[in-house]
This record gives sequence, structure tokens and C-alpha cells, in this order.
Amino acid sequence: MPYFDSASAAPLHPVARQALHASLDEGWADPARLYREGRRARLLLDAAREAAAEAVGCRADELVFTPSGTHAVHTGVAGVLAGRRRVGNHLVVSAVEHSSVLHAAQVHEALGGSVTEVAVDRWGAVTPAGYADALTPGSALACLQSANHEVGTVQPVAEVAELCGAAGVPLLVDAAQSLAWGPVEGAWSVLAASAHKWGGPPGVGLLAVRKGVRFSPQGPADERESGRSPGFVNLPAIVAAAASLRAVRAEADAEAARLRVLVDRIRRRVVRLVPDVEVVGDPERRLPHLVTFSCLYVDGETLLHELDRAGFSVSSGSSCTSSTLTPSHVLRAMGVLSEGNVRVSLPPGTPAEEVNAFLEVLPRAVAGVRERLGVSEPPAVAPVADSLELDALGLRCPQPVIELARAIVTVPVGGTVTVVSDDEVARLDIPAWCAMRGHTYVGESPRPTGTAYTVRRAA
Amino acid sequence: MPYFDSASAAPLHPVARQALHASLDEGWADPARLYREGRRARLLLDAAREAAAEAVGCRADELVFTPSGTHAVHTGVAGVLAGRRRVGNHLVVSAVEHSSVLHAAQVHEALGGSVTEVAVDRWGAVTPAGYADALTPGSALACLQSANHEVGTVQPVAEVAELCGAAGVPLLVDAAQSLAWGPVEGAWSVLAASAHKWGGPPGVGLLAVRKGVRFSPQGPADERESGRSPGFVNLPAIVAAAASLRAVRAEADAEAARLRVLVDRIRRRVVRLVPDVEVVGDPERRLPHLVTFSCLYVDGETLLHELDRAGFSVSSGSSCTSSTLTPSHVLRAMGVLSEGNVRVSLPPGTPAEEVNAFLEVLPRAVAGVRERLGVSEPPAVAPVADSLELDALGLRCPQPVIELARAIVTVPVGGTVTVVSDDEVARLDIPAWCAMRGHTYVGESPRPTGTAYTVRRAA
Repeated sequence: MPYFDSASAAPLHPVARQALHASLDEGWADPARLYREGRRARLLLDAAREAAAEAVGCRADELVFTPSGTHAVHTGVAGVLAGRRRVGNHLVVSAVEHSSVLHAAQVHEALGGSVTEVAVDRWGAVTPAGYADALTPGSALACLQSANHEVGTVQPVAEVAELCGAAGVPLLVDAAQSLAWGPVEGAWSVLAASAHKWGGPPGVGLLAVRKGVRFSPQGPADERESGRSPGFVNLPAIVAAAASLRAVRAEADAEAARLRVLVDRIRRRVVRLVPDVEVVGDPERRLPHLVTFSCLYVDGETLLHELDRAGFSVSSGSSCTSSTLTPSHVLRAMGVLSEGNVRVSLPPGTPAEEVNAFLEVLPRAVAGVRERLGVSEPPAVAPVADSLELDALGLRCPQPVIELARAIVTVPVGGTVTVVSDDEVARLDIPAWCAMRGHTYVGESPRPTGTAYTVRRAA
Repeated sequence: MPYFDSASAAPLHPVARQALHASLDEGWADPARLYREGRRARLLLDAAREAAAEAVGCRADELVFTPSGTHAVHTGVAGVLAGRRRVGNHLVVSAVEHSSVLHAAQVHEALGGSVTEVAVDRWGAVTPAGYADALTPGSALACLQSANHEVGTVQPVAEVAELCGAAGVPLLVDAAQSLAWGPVEGAWSVLAASAHKWGGPPGVGLLAVRKGVRFSPQGPADERESGRSPGFVNLPAIVAAAASLRAVRAEADAEAARLRVLVDRIRRRVVRLVPDVEVVGDPERRLPHLVTFSCLYVDGETLLHELDRAGFSVSSGSSCTSSTLTPSHVLRAMGVLSEGNVRVSLPPGTPAEEVNAFLEVLPRAVAGVRERLGVSEPPAVAPVADSLELDALGLRCPQPVIELARAIVTVPVGGTVTVVSDDEVARLDIPAWCAMRGHTYVGESPRPTGTAYTVRRAA
């Protein structure tokens, strides 16, 4: 049963399982204790820290283990902001960071700090110039992911780190999606990552803080993990996390090359096999194992269910919950189509046959969803009016766009259709539909209920 | 090799190991996802929550899993204090809470809140009257452990909960040390616990918040675990924690009765086998598996090393680190001897033979340490002066007390010895020594360097 959502969580690596079993016997005691079980635990902890630090590319005493990648991000952001309070209270983040970074930024703002979001291009990448513009003399911290978790685009971390370094501002890198594939290049200051993304067990995050970065841990004091991560250390899982990171790194280059070919095949073929699909994210500067595309006139959740019934576990490159109706902040920042969004992230070892089978199933699944939604190529009709207004209030994605596609053929070339919708997704998907279809997106204007989106028909 | 420090961390219960292995295969995916691996993970998470809630005695939707007992305490304290900010900013804790509670209280104080510490008696127990006196109309929260982690004394939680309930103040119970033995009695409002104390894996804490308690989670938003515990859920460990809690509970009554007999034997025999020992903590209202005693004229760390070399892993009923030189806040609050302190906490299944072997080894170990410190019964000598001042500056525990014992016989009955010491432990141990020896502790006065402690010789 193909599982194609390793960007969310990877199945346990065999080395992680082995290390976990061994350290359950050897590593359950408190490493701060003086007796032999404690000393044994301390040795295991020290060795795991050395191994993880080597993989990260930092000193062992710069790295602590946290209960999750989210904890690493929260602790890292809060610790640097507090440590550099005297410099200022300005925080710079990209618009496409993981929710853990954006939520930490929201807390900072709620406490009176200021936040600048750096925009991304249509591929989901920031530019170094964007960070240069955002930095101010009062900037306490900048954050940038190593690669995007929804669309796989790799960010110019080394260049941004250099800029930040020149400005004297530490850069925190959320390396959750890329650490399995290699160390983060460039002179970053703080790094966060999460073991279950590389096949380690859940319950382990990494937080590396370079010597010289002012860091003031927040929250109640706790002497464990250099005072940066409270609570009893989760040692068996830490040992398994470090061992599996080393193991996936040993296979990383070969596996990346292999998966890159499979993902390229998906990127090429999905647009041929499925009508009205947009593949999003940078085709070159990207994670090797991840591809995301959006299908016009398709409800993403229904499509995921269809694929699940056909045996494929994929995700919508959206937020962490499955229940949200708002479009992903990443796709929104990129300005690309969000409806019918599918993220495929291949775990290491995925056989080519599974990818081929997915490409067999996908067109039927999309066609099935569209059929049930009543999507069909609108017949050529004589224009009925120069302009038309559609009441799409109460309709949810992808219905407003489906109605728009039906209506556009009823106005002449140069005529307009205005869709009044109260669905947040329409703001993103109507312009994206125009770009895909070649029509002109005129703009939006508020209405007493909802918003009016106006489109001019092209030839 | 006997391990007698289950109050710090218990070895993994066989049921926990089994459940962990099984759920590594079934429970690695994100339970928020729609596909089959996610649904399977969700089922496991729901079942674990039901099982844990049943053992705690609360509803499943009142309980969340945290990365540790420390996280559960920090989150619980901060959440209730923030949720009841309008009522007031007063926090009540006992003087002998775990450091995680006291550190959370320190943060509250640093942010402008007020904290009242409820004193304990010589057995380490609070009185309900002590809590009644401490509560004010502005009290937002009261905290009380179910049983003390260093001396095993069981606290009157049900009575204090009733008092707090009558005053409309929620009571948070740190049940880390007792949850393995049974649910916490009484109408508590919030409960925290830690899985590795009952033989579950590390990496799992429990936080139960009764419906109706105003609770406002602090820190960055995260939708997992009802918004009360951020980060990817550590599901395999959670499943193992819940399964092992159920398993230890099934054996709890029988095992408690068995261990109680063994601990009673230690309590009785240690005072007969080792001269100048004080067993601390309530002899009746106590945890079944835990006993703590202090040995006069002994350096605790050296004694732990001796016992470790003899094959026994015990701890000093002190803070979580082994490197601290300050006396345990618990022993200090009780006003009992802290030098040569040893905590024995028997894991379930400890055979009687191991306890007997310990009682064989202990007297020799203590005698060995005392011999090396040059402790001997002082010979009767003719008094040399009515009063005497000893310069003990720079000497560390237990040396100041050893010097005092040597000097007291050189003054006549009714004469005084004044010890000038800069060792914090002297403040606790000199009065404790007086109580043990029958001498009168006159009091202390500050000196330019250190403090002068004066003792009047008894017959």
C-alpha cells in the first residue's frame, strides 16, 4: 500500500527501530544520576549528541534535543528574541514558513513585537533582496526554512545567511524538510529539525544554537539540555533519532538521485494525463522527493479520499489539520491555484512501480470527482449578455470556479463575468484560473456579503 | 544489579515494551491525516487516551498527552494562571513541590504574580489548615503534590481539594509519584503525571484539566492535543504509556503491600544497623516503595559512590542534578538532617533478597566513608573553656558538623560552641544534629564572612 506522505511523517527507519530496541534496555535511566545506569544513559546521550551534531554540522555543545521539531522552533525563536531584546523587537520571517514559525511570530506580535513577512515568487522562493529589504537596525532575528514543506522549493539559505551575518542578525533555519538529505549550507545561527521527518521516532527535535548567538531560554528553569529543553530526556528515542539520521545520510545522495527521477516523471506526466492541472513549486531548486499539483474543478478532500480508496496515501500540501477550509498560506503566498491540491512526498525506497501505479490511478480519480461535481466542457453558445453577475454565495471550493467556467462562454470576448463569493478560496483560485485559461483577472471589490471577483473573457 | 531509584525513572515495563513495538508499526503516521495510516494512528491515540483517562479518573476529552511530566506541570500551571487572570494573580504551592512546580512559580513571580509557599511539618506533610490560611480572594491556583518525591510522604489532597473547591480555587495535583499506585482521591481540578515513573517510556506526560476549569494555553498556537500540547504526537510512546499504566495498576495493590513490608524492614533496621541515622518522612502515610534516611558525618555523594561500587543504585533525595551542593529544598523545609542523604525507591518486582543484601552492605559503606573522613567517637576530655569558636570557613558538608562533634566535648555542660561556616548546608544540619544529640541549638548570627551557629552542650 503506497504511502506518499513522508513530508508529514516517515515510517520508522530499520536502523531507528534497532537503536530504539537496544537503548530501551540501556537508556531508560536519568543521565544526570551518578550510578551505573545513569552513567550508561549519559554515555548514550553524549554519543547521540555527537552523531547528531556531526550530521547538522555544529559542535556537540551547540545542540540540544527537544520533544519535537515544533518545540525546537518555538524554543529557538523565543530564546533568540529574548536574548537580543536590547537590540530590538523586530522579527523577519518568510511568508511560506511552517506554521510553528508563523505561530511563534504571532506570539511575538501579540507581546508587542513587530514582524515582517518576506514575500515569495510564484515558485515559492524568497529572494535574498527580499530579506535585505526587510532587515532593520532593530531586527533581532530572521527565520527561513531550508526548503518548503508544501511545494518542495529550496530556499537560498546561504545567501540570506550571509546577508543576515553582514547585518549582525542571527538567522534561524527550519531544516525539518531537508536535514535528511544533507546539512544546511551557509553560516546559519540557529537550526531546528524533527526526527520523524527522516525516519527517526516521533518525540525528538533538534535545536542547534551557534556559540556567540545571544540566547535566553524562556519559561520555567530546568537544568537539563543546557537549560534549553525542560523535562526528562527521551533517551531511547534520541538514540534512535541520531542513529537513523546517520543511516539516511549514508544513503541520501543515491536515494535523492533516484527519487528525483521519479518526481520528474510525475511532474512531466501529470500535466499530460490530467486536464487542467498546475504543478507548483520550483522544478529545479527543489527537494528530491516532493511534488505538489493542483487540479482545477476538484475538491481536494474528496480527491484525497478517492486516492486513499485506491490505496494511495497522499496529502494536501496544506496545513497540519485535515479539517481546515481555508487555503494553505503557502499556496496563497505563491498566488497559485489551491483547489484540488495534492502533495506527493516519496519515502526513501519507494519503488518506481508504485509511482507508475499512482499515475494510472490519478487521472481516473480526478475525472471521477469532476464527474460527480458536474464539470464538463461548456458547449459553444451564443453570448447572452455583455456582462454577467453570478451569485456564488454559500458555494464552496471548487464550485465558484466551476460556475465561472460555465458562465464565461455566455459572454462575448471582451465581456466580463463577476462572481460574488463568500468563499475565501475564491480570492486565490479565480485569479489562478484566469492565468491558466488566459482570461484577464480584472480585480475584486467588496460587497455587503462576500466579495465580487471580475473576469474579462479572452479569445 | 539492584536498581533502587524508581522514583527517578523506572525500567520499562514488559507491557510498555510490547505496546511500543506494536505501535511503531501501526502508529507512526500523523493522526490528523485522512488516509488509512492516519486513521489507524487516530484510533490508537483515541484508545490510549481512553485508557489513560480511565486510570486517572477523568473524561477522555479532559486529558492530553505532553512530552513529559515537567511539560504537563508547566503547561497546567501557566494555563490556569492565564485562564483565571481576572480573578487574581496569587498562586499557592507547598514548600516541598517538585522543582517543575517551583520553577513555574518562579516564572509567575518574575512576571509580577504573587506566590505563597505552604510550610510542611517534620514529616514533610502540609496541613489543610495551611492551605486554608494561604488562600485569598485573589488566588488563581493552588498546587499540591499527591506524594513527595524525596521522602514519600502522602499529602492530604482530598481535604485540600475540598477546601480549594469551597473557595472556588482550582487545585493542580502533581501526581507523578503516586499515579502508578492508584488514582488521586478527591475533587482535584488539574492533574499532571509522567509515564517513565510507572514503567512507561520517557517522552510522555499526562495533563488532565477538568471541564469547567478556566484554561488558557500559553505559547504559540498549535491545534494538536486540544491546543494544549504543541508538536507532533509521540504516538508509539503514548500507546506504550497507556498500556503500561493499565498493567501496573492491575498489579498495584498486591505489589504495594509487598513493597511496604520491605520498606518497613529498611526503616526499622537501618536505624539499628547504622549509628547516627535519621529516617525521614511519614512512617505511615507514605508511598509503599520509598524510604529516605540521612547519615550523620557522611558526605552523601561519596556514600552514593560507595553503594554504586557495591552494586546498588540509589539516589540522594535531592534535586534532579547530581552536581548541586545546596541541600534539597524538601529536607530544608522539613528541617531534618540532609547530610549523608539516601533515597531508596524500589521498582515493582524488587525481591526481598536485594533489600537484605542492601542492608548488609549499607553499614560497611557508611562506616567506610566515616573512617575516611576521620570521624570517631570523641574521647571524654576535661573542658578547656566555657565557650569555643570554631573556624569552619571553606569546609564543606559534613565537615562542619564533624568538627562541631569533636569540639562539643571540650566545653562543659551548659557551655557553647559557635561554628562559623560558609556552607549553606550547615544551617540545616547543625540544628538537626542538635536535635539528634540532645544539645540545644541557640541560633545563628551573620558574620562578615559566613554565619555563626551556636550550640549549647547538654548533659
